[in-house]
Amino acid sequence: MNYKMVGRFMSLVIITEAVFMVPAWIISLIHGEATSITAFATTIIGSILVGLLMFMLCRRAEMRFYAREGLVSAGLGWAIMSLVGCMPFFISGEIPAFIDAYFETVSGFTTTGASILTNVEAMSYGMLYWRSFTHWLGGMGVMVFLLAVIPASGKGNGFTMHLLRAESPGPNVGKLVPRMRQTATILYTLYVALTILCFVFLLFGGMSPFEAICTAYGTAGTGGFGIKNDSMAGYSVYIQNVCTVFMILFGVNFTCYYMLLLGKVKDVLKDEELKLYLGLIFASVVLISINTRSMFHSLGETVQQVFFQVATIITTTGFATTDFDLWPTFSKAILIILMFCGASAGSTGGGFKCGRILLLFKNLHRNLQKTLNPQKVLVVRNNGQVVSEKVLDNLNTYLIAYVMITIVSFLVICLDGKSLTTTMTSVIACFNNIGPGLDGVGPTCNYHDFSILSKIILIFDMLAGRLEIFPIMILLSKNTWKKLG
Amino acid sequence: MNYKMVGRFMSLVIITEAVFMVPAWIISLIHGEATSITAFATTIIGSILVGLLMFMLCRRAEMRFYAREGLVSAGLGWAIMSLVGCMPFFISGEIPAFIDAYFETVSGFTTTGASILTNVEAMSYGMLYWRSFTHWLGGMGVMVFLLAVIPASGKGNGFTMHLLRAESPGPNVGKLVPRMRQTATILYTLYVALTILCFVFLLFGGMSPFEAICTAYGTAGTGGFGIKNDSMAGYSVYIQNVCTVFMILFGVNFTCYYMLLLGKVKDVLKDEELKLYLGLIFASVVLISINTRSMFHSLGETVQQVFFQVATIITTTGFATTDFDLWPTFSKAILIILMFCGASAGSTGGGFKCGRILLLFKNLHRNLQKTLNPQKVLVVRNNGQVVSEKVLDNLNTYLIAYVMITIVSFLVICLDGKSLTTTMTSVIACFNNIGPGLDGVGPTCNYHDFSILSKIILIFDMLAGRLEIFPIMILLSKNTWKKLG
Repeated sequence: MNYKMVGRFMSLVIITEAVFMVPAWIISLIHGEATSITAFATTIIGSILVGLLMFMLCRRAEMRFYAREGLVSAGLGWAIMSLVGCMPFFISGEIPAFIDAYFETVSGFTTTGASILTNVEAMSYGMLYWRSFTHWLGGMGVMVFLLAVIPASGKGNGFTMHLLRAESPGPNVGKLVPRMRQTATILYTLYVALTILCFVFLLFGGMSPFEAICTAYGTAGTGGFGIKNDSMAGYSVYIQNVCTVFMILFGVNFTCYYMLLLGKVKDVLKDEELKLYLGLIFASVVLISINTRSMFHSLGETVQQVFFQVATIITTTGFATTDFDLWPTFSKAILIILMFCGASAGSTGGGFKCGRILLLFKNLHRNLQKTLNPQKVLVVRNNGQVVSEKVLDNLNTYLIAYVMITIVSFLVICLDGKSLTTTMTSVIACFNNIGPGLDGVGPTCNYHDFSILSKIILIFDMLAGRLEIFPIMILLSKNTWKKLG
Repeated sequence: MNYKMVGRFMSLVIITEAVFMVPAWIISLIHGEATSITAFATTIIGSILVGLLMFMLCRRAEMRFYAREGLVSAGLGWAIMSLVGCMPFFISGEIPAFIDAYFETVSGFTTTGASILTNVEAMSYGMLYWRSFTHWLGGMGVMVFLLAVIPASGKGNGFTMHLLRAESPGPNVGKLVPRMRQTATILYTLYVALTILCFVFLLFGGMSPFEAICTAYGTAGTGGFGIKNDSMAGYSVYIQNVCTVFMILFGVNFTCYYMLLLGKVKDVLKDEELKLYLGLIFASVVLISINTRSMFHSLGETVQQVFFQVATIITTTGFATTDFDLWPTFSKAILIILMFCGASAGSTGGGFKCGRILLLFKNLHRNLQKTLNPQKVLVVRNNGQVVSEKVLDNLNTYLIAYVMITIVSFLVICLDGKSLTTTMTSVIACFNNIGPGLDGVGPTCNYHDFSILSKIILIFDMLAGRLEIFPIMILLSKNTWKKLG
């Protein structure tokens, strides 16, 4: 392990985050929230001092790097980022228990949106802003941001490649352009532009600028933290529909938008993952609408409400306008399956990702054909291009790790003695970065009542889900910390 | 497809089954059960006639065979076997609906033990005997039996290899001796000997010979059909313990017994799957005993009862002595996980198999190491021997297919509107050939209330679970039926 280089990178993460906290501090200043002002100021100053100290200590880092350093930096970076991020909640006393403050912050950065708060509306403006902003920051990834702004050092491309791979969702990283730094810049530009668009549409719906910016952050990061106790239920149909559309847009692979900008409309329309993603949304809306028709006044209301819940679940956002825990079993089952599916690779959404599911199906089909025709050489293609066996191997490893983490988490949280549905969907909802589950963690409930052990497991699940398992698992491996490089 | 050869093999399956039905007919004769006598006689005579006709038609089969024919023969063989097997229930009117009779028979042959009967004790002796005997026949596999008794034709070894591979549980078939026929004979001899031992121990417990033979069949096949409405709850502690021990014994890879006979005790003790299987049982008994201690009178009773339920679930038998649906969530979660695990490869138990889980873990560990050291060549070893990449590939394919079948079945059965736990555990219990699940399909309930569509799905799941997916999936592939060979 090249500790110094990782340390240097951590110092950058901490300082960047402190800078990003300044707007929340200003909002506290405007609203004259004394404790919040102190809490933000303390965190900002403290982080910058610690960051600078770390940077000085690790200044002479050798720029030698392997996959290991990239993965460790991503995993450790997110854990430390959440630690810094939870300080304002904890110092101000707005979330008195440290584990709760950390849970809420991890939930924010990982764009899960699972909350331990029982009364969101009691929070100060500064804290609400910071809480929603964590979604936005976590959605595209802080390290991607750093890659975009930090001057790349000569040998840095290998390291940044591993880092971007560790932080970006999906089976293989789409390098839009040969240089990683440019790729990161393009991604963030698209992200900012789409967020502003969402913000403007929400303003038109009569939201205050504060409400609109917080909701836009939650939508853009596909996070799901709301600033109202009833999430999105109290807003107008127009605002709900704006969120539906933008949640779906943020669940699309950002490469598609880049292609659109380049005028490659045909390529985007032929994208297999996009077709699966939109197809799943359409099919789910139709099936659930038929199944829940009797629960709403009109067909229009049914489709509008179902569309919102399907979008919020498949994009792993987790906003709510209705209590889908009361829906029939078949509709709930579809939602559970969508929870696993998740959005597209290379989007801000979580879950297993449509692209992975597509590859799994194709690989399954290929292997069945291989059983029948052992002599034939058969390849898996994605959008016409041959998928390498290494990518397929990694995909299988990912599936195994995914299933195992789900099972172990489920077992430990069962010790709390909650119902099987509550326990199972709390794991699914956190691991896939959704937020609400069913039963005791349904859209009208929260995560306040879990034991500390369960909260630690769920924190692990949220981080493992957001970083796609390996960067977090590698932190727990003793081999990682053995060799001093 | 070499239709004639498959047809010839099907005719042998039908005739063999008819012969195996004779003891049930004799038992009906002894007890003077008029309708049962007619039902068995009709089925036996009809099957032999149909079988002979098929044999004559397919007499001139060319002995050309590929993996395809082996898989199709296994899948089709089990479907036809269940069709013949359900006729006595249906003709006698003891199970009036055809779908129910077919469900019960598939449940018998696949050693699932899921029942649609609401009053088992109302059945005639002949039918009860046949119902339990299906477990025994299905446990080791009818085709394995045929391999042992039918004279092998010259080129037949390839075909029989594929057939045995399709019917025997586990990631890779243990060829005990080079010739498949001998392997089959050894397996069946061990199976008969262990069953007789179980029968004798049960007789000592004061069971009538009829009760003892039916219970021995259910235990040996790890099936779970009882002949009492309360399953095993009314029997003495001695009898329950005999069943516990024999269920565990039948869940061990039969290769271990063969090794013991050859005096290779050390190899058996070092067997990694055996260690995992016994370790899982031990750990589960300890954890659940602590968790459920307050529900029983003494520690001894707790351990005895927990031991029985753990054995019945991990071996996928499905007998019951207590309603574990009332246990705490943590204990139920362990049972659900054991349902997935299942017994050992090469045993009569179902489920995913301990051996597969072991390989999945090892493969996961290997691939994580590979990520860190891309230049190293790393292999997966099982009992010291290198596992080929092809076996690992197949394992991954199996996992994907397993997860997908579970999800699709779950979704369709949700249309019945039963609770999520009922729906999920009914799929798990049938697909893993266990029998009882939780909630609406708990140990005190049955599968009577499901819709016809759900029953068809569960029948598919039971067959797919017993034959380990591919032989059943291949029956549904259009490619299978295209080429006339």
